[in-house]
Amino acid sequence: MPDMDVTVISIGNELLRGRTLNSNFTYICKFVTALGNSVKRGYTVRDEYEEIAYSLNESLAVSDIVITTGGLGPTFDDITVEAIAKALNLELVVDERALEMLKTKLKRQNLELTPYRKKMAVMPRGSEPLYNPEGTAPGLKITHNGKIIIVLPGVPREMEAILQSQKTLLTNPNLSYYEAMERFEGVMESVAAPFVEAEMKRWDGKIFIKSHPIKDADNRFAIDIEVLSYDTSPEQARKNVNEALSRLRQSLREKTY
Amino acid sequence: MPDMDVTVISIGNELLRGRTLNSNFTYICKFVTALGNSVKRGYTVRDEYEEIAYSLNESLAVSDIVITTGGLGPTFDDITVEAIAKALNLELVVDERALEMLKTKLKRQNLELTPYRKKMAVMPRGSEPLYNPEGTAPGLKITHNGKIIIVLPGVPREMEAILQSQKTLLTNPNLSYYEAMERFEGVMESVAAPFVEAEMKRWDGKIFIKSHPIKDADNRFAIDIEVLSYDTSPEQARKNVNEALSRLRQSLREKTY
Repeated sequence: MPDMDVTVISIGNELLRGRTLNSNFTYICKFVTALGNSVKRGYTVRDEYEEIAYSLNESLAVSDIVITTGGLGPTFDDITVEAIAKALNLELVVDERALEMLKTKLKRQNLELTPYRKKMAVMPRGSEPLYNPEGTAPGLKITHNGKIIIVLPGVPREMEAILQSQKTLLTNPNLSYYEAMERFEGVMESVAAPFVEAEMKRWDGKIFIKSHPIKDADNRFAIDIEVLSYDTSPEQARKNVNEALSRLRQSLREKTY
Repeated sequence: MPDMDVTVISIGNELLRGRTLNSNFTYICKFVTALGNSVKRGYTVRDEYEEIAYSLNESLAVSDIVITTGGLGPTFDDITVEAIAKALNLELVVDERALEMLKTKLKRQNLELTPYRKKMAVMPRGSEPLYNPEGTAPGLKITHNGKIIIVLPGVPREMEAILQSQKTLLTNPNLSYYEAMERFEGVMESVAAPFVEAEMKRWDGKIFIKSHPIKDADNRFAIDIEVLSYDTSPEQARKNVNEALSRLRQSLREKTY
């Protein structure tokens, strides 16, 4: 199955207090999955040096690409960049390209470059700043021992814009992804389960099927069956999904409750 | 600060594909924080034995209470209970109380107890089944080396109902939590930052302050300043928060942009 594994680290105490719904995580997962990658694991951690270092090291051990979100702003608890530099033992420097981006942004808003704001141009030596079209703090890309770390802000529209700009980098050259979902009215999940299981076995790892129990408008049972496939081309992945769905349709036709 | 640490493990491939927004995580974090606990870390992992074992062991190493959500249903990929039993080296048995709950539920729906459904009554020996008023699969509580593991379904209304039933267990007897938020119109985050930092230093860990930059209706700058405190009584925690907010109000009065 997929050979480009991604781990996502969401950084911010507000996530762990339940103040903020982590829609960034869902957005990132959807985006990289559609590009043929597979998200291995997600961490949600506090704005603390040890926690960021822990999750980064754990992620680098199991994935090729690590994407972080949160903690890039000007305030004292925005420590993501510093924590990553410490964890990887990289020197922090003012990045001239990031500083230019920052100055242009501030000038447009008629604001001064205070030390608090200059912090947003400080990066581990060797990083590439990623232009933030929606906000002030640039993102950054770090290449480390052949792995890539993409560091994004926590404000959703800023995070999304920078992530979109990395689409080419994040596209898996070897695998394409396709998914489809179909609702089966009147079918219970436990009735469908053996058929789903048998269908998956046929494919030996090439497709994955998941059922989601729901109740329909008349409060009768229904399930959404989702079928997804990674394959060498978009056409092949789509063909796999359609074939599996068609067989499930036949099997479940007379199993309505 | 808080002495009852909680770790939350969200289990399900659909979360890592970006199909499902993890609102369960936010709900659990909000619920346990309000009861005086502190959420240490969150894991989002696949429906895989090794991933569930990994996140469980990591969580038990740093927290007193571990709450999992997802993977309790009847289908082949609902492996949470089995994975936890394997990870902790506990024997799986049909729990008689869970079986009774299951039979009552199925009878009401005029359904048979098939092997697929019976799976939902299988638990590590010594577990306590937790009644699920909103669905079929019971939750479970496992006590392990003085730590507590609460295993909840992934369907939100089922998860919420069972979590609510554990309110007494999850209430921190030593600490109360209070938080409040106030909007400061016309104040930029980078202007407020030094005042926020100074206020936090005064309290030496007893309160935490976080600013969230927003733009107000006229597209002017504004920030939401959130102040939270853990203390020995609800009254004391509230007093701390109000005192800090009042001082910030004074400091920032003349700092509007």
